[in-house]
Amino acid sequence: MKFQRLALIGCGLMGGSFALALRQAAGVAHVAGFSASESTRQKALKLGVIDSACASAAEAVQGADLVGSTKGDVVSAARAALVQHLSHFVPAHPIAGKEVAGIEHVDAKLYRDRQLILTPLPENPSERVLRARQVWQALGSRVLELSPEAHDASFAAVSHMPHLLSFALVAQIASEADGARKLGFAGAGFRDFTRIAASSPTMWRDIALANGAALSAELASYRALLDRLQQAVDSGDGAELGRVFTLASDARRSVRLGPAQGERDE
Amino acid sequence: MKFQRLALIGCGLMGGSFALALRQAAGVAHVAGFSASESTRQKALKLGVIDSACASAAEAVQGADLVGSTKGDVVSAARAALVQHLSHFVPAHPIAGKEVAGIEHVDAKLYRDRQLILTPLPENPSERVLRARQVWQALGSRVLELSPEAHDASFAAVSHMPHLLSFALVAQIASEADGARKLGFAGAGFRDFTRIAASSPTMWRDIALANGAALSAELASYRALLDRLQQAVDSGDGAELGRVFTLASDARRSVRLGPAQGERDE
Repeated sequence: MKFQRLALIGCGLMGGSFALALRQAAGVAHVAGFSASESTRQKALKLGVIDSACASAAEAVQGADLVGSTKGDVVSAARAALVQHLSHFVPAHPIAGKEVAGIEHVDAKLYRDRQLILTPLPENPSERVLRARQVWQALGSRVLELSPEAHDASFAAVSHMPHLLSFALVAQIASEADGARKLGFAGAGFRDFTRIAASSPTMWRDIALANGAALSAELASYRALLDRLQQAVDSGDGAELGRVFTLASDARRSVRLGPAQGERDE
Repeated sequence: MKFQRLALIGCGLMGGSFALALRQAAGVAHVAGFSASESTRQKALKLGVIDSACASAAEAVQGADLVGSTKGDVVSAARAALVQHLSHFVPAHPIAGKEVAGIEHVDAKLYRDRQLILTPLPENPSERVLRARQVWQALGSRVLELSPEAHDASFAAVSHMPHLLSFALVAQIASEADGARKLGFAGAGFRDFTRIAASSPTMWRDIALANGAALSAELASYRALLDRLQQAVDSGDGAELGRVFTLASDARRSVRLGPAQGERDE
């Protein structure tokens, strides 16, 4: 597997690491990079991540035999922009990241031994899906396929919800008059529960909006459960609290969670 | 400071560690221990944590010049039981613990360099409060005083709420048909957010009930915030999401949280 021209749309940590890894794994004659920020483009050039900096995504994809982009909510954008070429676009979600962003933290091993979820479109012929699978496998990723709906519901539940709930608790306490005193008593449980509340508010706002439908469904279901728990607390219903807490504790103890996958997991 | 007889009501990790630490720090001629479990009493005897095992709390406190108890929700019990001796009872909450419970994990250094919150009763004369402070300081604790109301609200916010919310998310996912698949995509954020959902459901049920009034108020306020966030998600209101997430992220980044204080923090 060898590519003539990779068009890289977005030259940050994720895209840059993809380009580096692909160079090593498969060989790429030329990486044409576009990034909205001029300084990012220049940094990527200087680091040798890209061979040429392009002034637009359209310029980058000219003559490309592989296009790599890392913007969120990319499927609807691709539908609008690619039109008859949509069959070439196989959406993928790498479960990888770092706590730090930016091209300066580029890492050719970023996707190695990480899950990579392909969510093929109805427009993708099976040979395109296979080709996409091969590209990611060449980078060392463990590839699995999921419907877009199952993908969105899963990440709403195990990633977007924890972030929203963690942001909400810190925002609640911080906006209270006695918030600072309360935070002074925070221990290890609070520290871990709210670690992700220090995440980028802009990135998570965008993720919440991009996955709004699935997140809305999970949030509504969660709020219904909190309604029940509030009733149980208010009426001193220990049996109900015990049932919910026990269900959770048993599930959390028995589930095999993956190893840490970088701190900026989604 | 030297005590003739410490009555230890509850001979688990917390009580046993208190007795060991007090022996080393101040000297105690005799530790009379009561625990509901006969096997715990025998273990505590064998480990030399207590000098005599008593069949009841009443027997243990006979002739004691210091009584140490670690049951939750102890203030109302003390009000009922101690009656005219209530002035001798100075409630204290040590912010200390371990991930493991039981007398076999007893540790004389458990309270050293840990916060200890005294919540004096109106019935406590100031010399009793001072005496209690001296006992805990002798064990190496950093002592501060708080009204019971401020104490309860603080721990509801930074400890009991995170536990309830973490239990709730895991219970929600685990009770769904596709829960196992969703959990398969959990990353580092979920892992940390739900670490405390593996805690003892019985202990946290009891804590939630014991601190019901304060927990109810915090939970109601949190649910109101989730109502707002649900509306924002449903209407695509990025500005509102951004405001709440930014408030949280700024607060979480700037707050100085204490060092890890054992995993079984309350």
